[in-house]
Amino acid sequence: MKKYVAEFIGTFWLVLGGCGSAVLAAVFTSDANIIGQEVYYPLGISFVGVSLAFGLTVLTMAYAIGHISGCHLNPAVSFGLWAGKRFSGRELLPYIVAQVLGAILGGAIIWLIASGNPEFSLEGSNPMATNGYGAHSPGGYSLLSCLITEVVMTFMFLMIILGSTDRRAPAGFAPVAIGLGLTLIHLISIPVTNTSVNPARSTGVALFAGTELIAQLWLFWFAPILGALLAGWCYHAVFAEARAEQDAADAMSDREFEQIS
Amino acid sequence: MKKYVAEFIGTFWLVLGGCGSAVLAAVFTSDANIIGQEVYYPLGISFVGVSLAFGLTVLTMAYAIGHISGCHLNPAVSFGLWAGKRFSGRELLPYIVAQVLGAILGGAIIWLIASGNPEFSLEGSNPMATNGYGAHSPGGYSLLSCLITEVVMTFMFLMIILGSTDRRAPAGFAPVAIGLGLTLIHLISIPVTNTSVNPARSTGVALFAGTELIAQLWLFWFAPILGALLAGWCYHAVFAEARAEQDAADAMSDREFEQIS
Amino acid sequence: MKKYVAEFIGTFWLVLGGCGSAVLAAVFTSDANIIGQEVYYPLGISFVGVSLAFGLTVLTMAYAIGHISGCHLNPAVSFGLWAGKRFSGRELLPYIVAQVLGAILGGAIIWLIASGNPEFSLEGSNPMATNGYGAHSPGGYSLLSCLITEVVMTFMFLMIILGSTDRRAPAGFAPVAIGLGLTLIHLISIPVTNTSVNPARSTGVALFAGTELIAQLWLFWFAPILGALLAGWCYHAVFAEARAEQDAADAMSDREFEQIS
Amino acid sequence: MKKYVAEFIGTFWLVLGGCGSAVLAAVFTSDANIIGQEVYYPLGISFVGVSLAFGLTVLTMAYAIGHISGCHLNPAVSFGLWAGKRFSGRELLPYIVAQVLGAILGGAIIWLIASGNPEFSLEGSNPMATNGYGAHSPGGYSLLSCLITEVVMTFMFLMIILGSTDRRAPAGFAPVAIGLGLTLIHLISIPVTNTSVNPARSTGVALFAGTELIAQLWLFWFAPILGALLAGWCYHAVFAEARAEQDAADAMSDREFEQIS
Repeated sequence: MKKYVAEFIGTFWLVLGGCGSAVLAAVFTSDANIIGQEVYYPLGISFVGVSLAFGLTVLTMAYAIGHISGCHLNPAVSFGLWAGKRFSGRELLPYIVAQVLGAILGGAIIWLIASGNPEFSLEGSNPMATNGYGAHSPGGYSLLSCLITEVVMTFMFLMIILGSTDRRAPAGFAPVAIGLGLTLIHLISIPVTNTSVNPARSTGVALFAGTELIAQLWLFWFAPILGALLAGWCYHAVFAEARAEQDAADAMSDREFEQIS
Repeated sequence: MKKYVAEFIGTFWLVLGGCGSAVLAAVFTSDANIIGQEVYYPLGISFVGVSLAFGLTVLTMAYAIGHISGCHLNPAVSFGLWAGKRFSGRELLPYIVAQVLGAILGGAIIWLIASGNPEFSLEGSNPMATNGYGAHSPGGYSLLSCLITEVVMTFMFLMIILGSTDRRAPAGFAPVAIGLGLTLIHLISIPVTNTSVNPARSTGVALFAGTELIAQLWLFWFAPILGALLAGWCYHAVFAEARAEQDAADAMSDREFEQIS
Repeated sequence: MKKYVAEFIGTFWLVLGGCGSAVLAAVFTSDANIIGQEVYYPLGISFVGVSLAFGLTVLTMAYAIGHISGCHLNPAVSFGLWAGKRFSGRELLPYIVAQVLGAILGGAIIWLIASGNPEFSLEGSNPMATNGYGAHSPGGYSLLSCLITEVVMTFMFLMIILGSTDRRAPAGFAPVAIGLGLTLIHLISIPVTNTSVNPARSTGVALFAGTELIAQLWLFWFAPILGALLAGWCYHAVFAEARAEQDAADAMSDREFEQIS
Repeated sequence: MKKYVAEFIGTFWLVLGGCGSAVLAAVFTSDANIIGQEVYYPLGISFVGVSLAFGLTVLTMAYAIGHISGCHLNPAVSFGLWAGKRFSGRELLPYIVAQVLGAILGGAIIWLIASGNPEFSLEGSNPMATNGYGAHSPGGYSLLSCLITEVVMTFMFLMIILGSTDRRAPAGFAPVAIGLGLTLIHLISIPVTNTSVNPARSTGVALFAGTELIAQLWLFWFAPILGALLAGWCYHAVFAEARAEQDAADAMSDREFEQIS
């Protein structure tokens, strides 16, 4: 049960931190009171700050709850780890339910806070930091461009996750690689799809943004999960340790353990 | 005594670095001398730089004085660690006194440096990087939005602290997670309350900013401490190691210690 | 074979992430729909975001595939490691082939995604984030300035790589130093050459940008490889462990190994 | 001899990376060729990018040459470590000579590269990213403000260095804390003095910037070294391990060593 609570809280934080920073802080113009002169100044965090925020939600949660649930926070990650033979298929459904519920709570808290600002509105192409394609792509990218982007970005996100948590990689650094990897993915692709690579994140805010955005949600379930599955199979087929190496390593650590105990 | 000096210096640094960067460097416009052409250019660090500065004060101090005092630098953190059964109630008062005094010295040094600039003034909604709600919220957010924001942000800050310093998390990385966690919290919430999550930080600068800001200080003691207490209780109830696991781990490390000595 | 696939995927990611972020996200102007008012706002990631993106491609891949191939992702790095006696000369050619092919695929995917934006064009001094000098230097720098910049930057990049992967440096941190070192190099030199220090990266995008850019590619093979060779020889001559120290260290670890096994 | 070469190269990199990023990349305005529309866009790295660049020169060098020379790169750091009883007084002079020579080479390379840009000039308040006060303070701060700023910033820089390299702090992370600490110091104080905290860095570029800037150099030798000495004495007096603890720790590690050998 602990691990479902962890996934719920972690995905709540991913949506509140990532989408919340976009909704509340991406654009902010100083007024004369703040800067002491009558000139417009861009104080908001822009795409760099939003990219950093998304990545840091994962970095912080990976250190905070990684030892509880593995810190997936993302149905695509759970599917990819399953395809890479690192995660049990029986856990897929409860993990995804916890993730989606946490994401919806994140969306609700953003909506609640933002509503306390008299200028808040749900107009525009991506209200509530939703994901979209075509008319709802921030930069007006086609469905094909958006599909390729989400598949490739999630594929590489899972390669980073599978590689940095590999037993042969340096211990303890995976949260840095994975968190900053998500930052990198946002630096590349916010203009294309507003960056999803995470069906729960897309769902958690779309529910508060109206039917047009909800109607585009299918792409942000289909493409990330497809990219993640391809990465899981690819990493396992190409880079996984051979069975013999694994057995040798297990035998070694068993011997060490026997010496200690 | 060492540890109170450490908390004093660390909280001094948090206020000088975080609030100081906001006061001195958030907004800076180039003049023609600098860029070689007569065009306005935004050289200041904006909210991204201020967020980074706050987080890096904690990251740097956690590596520098973590081994002395645990590096709380924040009354809400001390309360949250106490609620999570990681910190003695008898130390609460001296820690908080040291933190508030350090924060006030930080505010004084900012005021002293800033006064050497002929354009410095205490006008505007948030002079000296103070926290506020309503008319003193940078983005004009309501009291309710500000209350929710501070409670939720401090709750998650403490979840990151309690989780990343858990014995089961990778050793040595907690300062990275906690420092960048504070950066993340600022990326989200500067427009709402100018981000406190720390009663000492709020107090240290408000004292130099006039009675209107001092009159709003109650929120930045109440909300962060409430959020921290909830997190401490929640983490201990849901995620803490069972007593049996702890005993087993202690027994294991005792055995190892006996073998060495 | 595994290692060539790893170099292929890693260099693909370097070009897609670094050049892709420059092409897709460096410049992005908000429209009224996004910010709720009729004012121009710079939301794009600018040179800071592009610098971060390049560095994070290397940081993430170094943790993900470092244990497979050593994560060079760059013909100059392979040459420099060879000159520093860390890499076999027989592996040079297959590594470089894999890197260049990966880079070209990266360029192709950027082109494919960008083509889905009706405003995408190949005009300007550096289309597809290509490298150049003189008329194709982003800031109009001379060939001499560009040559010095690429030689010195690659020299220092290899010093960072050779030093941080030295047996005497702290284990596990090299990907952080190397990745953020590439970020630093971009922060300095994007205005000069658009920053190469990597012949594969330059080639991978130039092929899609027209003959004028292809005609300048020679500099971005010559200068980075020269700088890398100089660094390899320099590090080995000045900083490498003396043979006697190495033997002592090897003997020590042999003894430890015998005790364990 | 190795260690003097390391300090020379490292301080060269600090000046080339930190001051070079400021000279070459802080301000950069897109032209229509780059962004495909006739609008001014701020692509330069601004104070955030320059702050990051300074910090990353130290972070990268600390991993690359920390095992050779300790990576001071700064006369004030050498003085502070000496005051904190971590560095031999006999090494002070050769270290400082190597640092200043490296810094001057860094300034020369910046000048050489920048001269290849037809628009480069030495006019303005801080040409070549020099440090200054009064008329040469970027924000017009008084001598007193500048003096306080440099003393306090260097004091805290040394507290971070002494604390994070203390035997009781987590091993391997000091370069992260120290490098990002220098980033933080720049985020706060670029508008005040253009941030020195390093006499070698100030000297290396002032020599290329004219007599007015050279005449202000005294402050950037006096204030950083004063702040560093105060920190060294303070850390040693307040936070250093008691002699008894040290002896116990040494005895412990001696015992461990005897068991291994």
